Amino acid sequence: MGGSEQVAVGIIGASGYGGVQLVRLLLDHPLVKISYLGGESSAGKSFTEIYPHLQLGWNLNIEPIDIEEIGKRCQAVFLSLPNGLACDLAPKLLDMGCKVLDLSADYRLTNLDTYRTWYGKDRQDVDAIGKAVYGLPELYRGNIARSNLIGCPGCYPTASLLALAPLLKQGLIDEETAIIDAKSGTSGGGRQAKTNLLLAEADNSLGAYGVTHHRHTPEIEQVCTELAGNEVTVQFTPHLIPMVRGILATVYANLRDPGLVTEDLITIYTAFYRSSKFVKILPSGIYPQTKWACGTNLCYIGIEVDPRTQRVIVMSAIDNLIKGQAGQAIQCLNLMMGWEETLGLPQLSFYP
Amino acid sequence: MGGSEQVAVGIIGASGYGGVQLVRLLLDHPLVKISYLGGESSAGKSFTEIYPHLQLGWNLNIEPIDIEEIGKRCQAVFLSLPNGLACDLAPKLLDMGCKVLDLSADYRLTNLDTYRTWYGKDRQDVDAIGKAVYGLPELYRGNIARSNLIGCPGCYPTASLLALAPLLKQGLIDEETAIIDAKSGTSGGGRQAKTNLLLAEADNSLGAYGVTHHRHTPEIEQVCTELAGNEVTVQFTPHLIPMVRGILATVYANLRDPGLVTEDLITIYTAFYRSSKFVKILPSGIYPQTKWACGTNLCYIGIEVDPRTQRVIVMSAIDNLIKGQAGQAIQCLNLMMGWEETLGLPQLSFYP
Amino acid sequence: MGGSEQVAVGIIGASGYGGVQLVRLLLDHPLVKISYLGGESSAGKSFTEIYPHLQLGWNLNIEPIDIEEIGKRCQAVFLSLPNGLACDLAPKLLDMGCKVLDLSADYRLTNLDTYRTWYGKDRQDVDAIGKAVYGLPELYRGNIARSNLIGCPGCYPTASLLALAPLLKQGLIDEETAIIDAKSGTSGGGRQAKTNLLLAEADNSLGAYGVTHHRHTPEIEQVCTELAGNEVTVQFTPHLIPMVRGILATVYANLRDPGLVTEDLITIYTAFYRSSKFVKILPSGIYPQTKWACGTNLCYIGIEVDPRTQRVIVMSAIDNLIKGQAGQAIQCLNLMMGWEETLGLPQLSFYP
Amino acid sequence: MGGSEQVAVGIIGASGYGGVQLVRLLLDHPLVKISYLGGESSAGKSFTEIYPHLQLGWNLNIEPIDIEEIGKRCQAVFLSLPNGLACDLAPKLLDMGCKVLDLSADYRLTNLDTYRTWYGKDRQDVDAIGKAVYGLPELYRGNIARSNLIGCPGCYPTASLLALAPLLKQGLIDEETAIIDAKSGTSGGGRQAKTNLLLAEADNSLGAYGVTHHRHTPEIEQVCTELAGNEVTVQFTPHLIPMVRGILATVYANLRDPGLVTEDLITIYTAFYRSSKFVKILPSGIYPQTKWACGTNLCYIGIEVDPRTQRVIVMSAIDNLIKGQAGQAIQCLNLMMGWEETLGLPQLSFYP
Repeated sequence: MGGSEQVAVGIIGASGYGGVQLVRLLLDHPLVKISYLGGESSAGKSFTEIYPHLQLGWNLNIEPIDIEEIGKRCQAVFLSLPNGLACDLAPKLLDMGCKVLDLSADYRLTNLDTYRTWYGKDRQDVDAIGKAVYGLPELYRGNIARSNLIGCPGCYPTASLLALAPLLKQGLIDEETAIIDAKSGTSGGGRQAKTNLLLAEADNSLGAYGVTHHRHTPEIEQVCTELAGNEVTVQFTPHLIPMVRGILATVYANLRDPGLVTEDLITIYTAFYRSSKFVKILPSGIYPQTKWACGTNLCYIGIEVDPRTQRVIVMSAIDNLIKGQAGQAIQCLNLMMGWEETLGLPQLSFYP
Repeated sequence: MGGSEQVAVGIIGASGYGGVQLVRLLLDHPLVKISYLGGESSAGKSFTEIYPHLQLGWNLNIEPIDIEEIGKRCQAVFLSLPNGLACDLAPKLLDMGCKVLDLSADYRLTNLDTYRTWYGKDRQDVDAIGKAVYGLPELYRGNIARSNLIGCPGCYPTASLLALAPLLKQGLIDEETAIIDAKSGTSGGGRQAKTNLLLAEADNSLGAYGVTHHRHTPEIEQVCTELAGNEVTVQFTPHLIPMVRGILATVYANLRDPGLVTEDLITIYTAFYRSSKFVKILPSGIYPQTKWACGTNLCYIGIEVDPRTQRVIVMSAIDNLIKGQAGQAIQCLNLMMGWEETLGLPQLSFYP
Repeated sequence: MGGSEQVAVGIIGASGYGGVQLVRLLLDHPLVKISYLGGESSAGKSFTEIYPHLQLGWNLNIEPIDIEEIGKRCQAVFLSLPNGLACDLAPKLLDMGCKVLDLSADYRLTNLDTYRTWYGKDRQDVDAIGKAVYGLPELYRGNIARSNLIGCPGCYPTASLLALAPLLKQGLIDEETAIIDAKSGTSGGGRQAKTNLLLAEADNSLGAYGVTHHRHTPEIEQVCTELAGNEVTVQFTPHLIPMVRGILATVYANLRDPGLVTEDLITIYTAFYRSSKFVKILPSGIYPQTKWACGTNLCYIGIEVDPRTQRVIVMSAIDNLIKGQAGQAIQCLNLMMGWEETLGLPQLSFYP
Repeated sequence: MGGSEQVAVGIIGASGYGGVQLVRLLLDHPLVKISYLGGESSAGKSFTEIYPHLQLGWNLNIEPIDIEEIGKRCQAVFLSLPNGLACDLAPKLLDMGCKVLDLSADYRLTNLDTYRTWYGKDRQDVDAIGKAVYGLPELYRGNIARSNLIGCPGCYPTASLLALAPLLKQGLIDEETAIIDAKSGTSGGGRQAKTNLLLAEADNSLGAYGVTHHRHTPEIEQVCTELAGNEVTVQFTPHLIPMVRGILATVYANLRDPGLVTEDLITIYTAFYRSSKFVKILPSGIYPQTKWACGTNLCYIGIEVDPRTQRVIVMSAIDNLIKGQAGQAIQCLNLMMGWEETLGLPQLSFYP
């Protein structure tokens, strides 16, 4: 498990899809070693019991969540737990000098009222507000590098915001016309057994859910508001697609300048993401397929302007479990540690 | 194949997905007998050679397309051919006294310029313009019943228009804000072998296509314009979904009256479709799954008003090959013959 | 819900996949009306709450399981419950004069020791042994017609036995060489949420389970033994396939007569199933696809003799929830009531 | 594209699934640089035109197949062409000093009569018979290392032979009882558009094909015969599964020694594959899922002995396009070059 110069990291909540992605990716990371796998229901099991394909030649065992011990052993900790648990653990880990990357919603929202409205409860860890940085490197690279506490974005917000950011930042659209029609594979629903996520129910079918009230909405609006410099309200509609991995966000907005054409926007997007190696702007007429992004930390973006309606349609595709979750968290860690941003993160999918 | 009082029908272009649906459905129709299966590349084959599961105890053979013979044998003819062929055959069949139901785009558009713009060629059969009726029974029931020539709607327009019609007819929305984000199973691409429709390419992936320029757009706009009483331009974006059958249209529009709530619209839709047995308006909070409609002629509609944005989101789900194609054509035939509209059309899906 | 001459039936355990198939099929049955839907966890709910697509214009409500009331209201009762419950309910229903069709394993095995060995417990209802008939109409048509208690076959045994029966009955194979490699869609696992049946786990993957010890084995062996006239032990291996519905059984056996060719066996099978309208023997070189059987009560059988190995390979395809479960139970009811065997049972799939 | 010490390789037939896998894998290989992408129909195109997701920052262009030029530029050449073309190109490349790895059937069979029987034509390159080595490293590691011409195995033979080899080599089974029931995702059918591989046809369905006469049979038998030391005839039945990637082979055979139990065989397999890092023997009761192998060069093997029938059931799972094709070819190249066998080959799948 690596040489002495590797950084020791912990993964708390290791048995879910977020956890197994982190384990999978970090095993290939040249500067990291996994020093703690923590879980509650899975404590005491070997990782191979839960994921029999992960035969590594040595044992990864899941331990109970012992904060003292985690703090001693780890320089950085990924929290991959249900909403509401991280804000109890993170302050202690920060106090012990750990860098903390939280994959839940606990550290994403800066406004406590917004949190209460959408999550139906108060957040415990009031102090950390202001310290936590939203972990979308393409937008907050510098702040992430300087922070010890990252609220990693949700999968839908990642796809949505990468599609919308250049438009909002440069004032190209009428913000209140922004509509995000998002489509996700069912792995986004996690590994808990739920009837609606059974193959027998979800395969060969398709439907929307959480219409008008999905919890990723305020997170999208918070960043859009920052980018635009004024309050933005978006329409966000998620759909469940009969596939395992991948998100496609189809974003609609009215352009302020009716003279803009597709090629103009491709130029603008290419410039905006010039230093973002994981964002791939597609040429005119090519639209992203989610499969292209699967197994990678990439985001593919396709753009089309409709001269008939003066609308722009932006399509972004990611792997919901990598760029939308575990890969992005590692991208943040790379920045926090001062490493090359792309370290240990796959950039080529296996096609088909 | 039935008693003497049954109506003899022909299916031209019987070997594709449209054809096999028509055959399948008409074999169960109590007042119809199939008297002619016509095809070009498949002429001379038995239907069982092409679809080995259709073992019927007698032979259905595909014959060359002999218009004289079709006209002699059939009282009604379904044309299930590539665009541009029906307008050559239909006039002759009409002259011979046949009722004609065309499943291609040839008789959908009333404006020849629009046809040329979107289909890139002139339409030959100029005379029939004005005679042909758009075959969406929920909107044009009376005209269909009185017509001998039906231009059956495309699959996407069926789902889109059933979702939009009550809003437009009653002036509830700002028409220029209408956006249709549509998702279809791959059977909508037909049975011709195309690389992008291979399972290896299309499964476990998702993407948009024909963005801003899909040919179903003018057909949707034509009917929207009629319903609204003024010119309507819509944004229409189709997506390919990794499943065999089904279309979901997610429709967005800004409400004119900010006081309307979800329940108001459910009431309005329920009233609008009161005499339409194939349209099922779902209760508040329930959103349609395409699987519910599969194997039926139904259209499920779910509605949600977003008080934050003053938008309405309407979701409609159909089986693209039945309500979106063959079933709807039979529904039209039922009306043209003066029969019960639901005759021979399935109303209960097999779930899951 | 029908005229006075219709037979009143009950479905106990109505909310699972077996139940919803029975409801779906019986709603189309001309001589049956559903008079009782019983359930435990779902009691008090309307059927439409559980399956929102079943909007029928009237309410089907799920009632608690009150045996007295069921007996009063129903002439025939389908029990679609977990193993071990039917043998408590069935005797009481039989005493009250009901015909009972049990879809669980409780009444399939005639040997109590075998039951204990494979199911790990004693069966309570010892008296009914000998009364119950195995509900595979193609093999036990007469006995079913004369019985009041049917142990309906499992889905795998249905496909396996229809493939093997002519070979065993006519002594064509060395029985101890019989191997059944079976493949099933995940709906066979029921509607209970289990992690391994999640789309995210089961889609785009494939594996065997229950190798050498699946509980359907003794049921297959019992019937094979009866057909062969001597004790038969079979190798049975089930696999989970990433699809919703359908079973394919690929059966291997060594032929006793090395001179037999494929066409001989097709002739033998065709003769054997001459009066079985739901069994379709395919011509030489055509192998069954499960999709052909989906949504129907059919079983498609393809046969190939390998002259190099003197083996016969028989492939049978069914819809696991119809011919493998609910449809077959209705087929049995038709026989018990003296009705046409095919009544109310679909024979044409929707393709593709 | 790498430093001066890297080995220059060519890929001829680069636009198919085999080609894109090779490109994908070799781009990550530390000691290889791609110096020639050759194609016929795709010549003149950039690789990104064919696979738009492969945005590499530099261009890979597909060139016409110019043998002189390939020989000049490349030290090793992968031929990924339809059967019958490699035996025309390989001799010239060998003459020019290239190492040749052929992914077609041209160099797999050592017996020309067998080739003619199963492929229906004579093979042109008679001289190379005897020179070519069958490229299954787990069985022919030494020979591969010493050879310049590799006939890379088919996907089905790879899974089948890895499952059978220990049994045959150690004389544990009655060879004539060996049955291979194999299941493959549809990517095995290649990227050519064929109706039966359309998602609309192949999804949610399942069937066998090539029963008794699939062309991978003689290749399996040739190796089995070598391993057993006497002529072996196997029963091989492939099935098409509704998924993109993966093969599962379920292998049945009668054990000679009735005293062997599952644990014995697990011990034997573990010893047999001790030095084969890509073969993972699973513990008792765990059966391989194809998804575990997807995106890797691994082969997972599960074993179960049935004491009731004295049969062993061995299940092996691979990624048909990696261990079954491109990855295995690279594994061979690693051996031929004297490199670490695992170089550049992924060993951890992305799950789920």
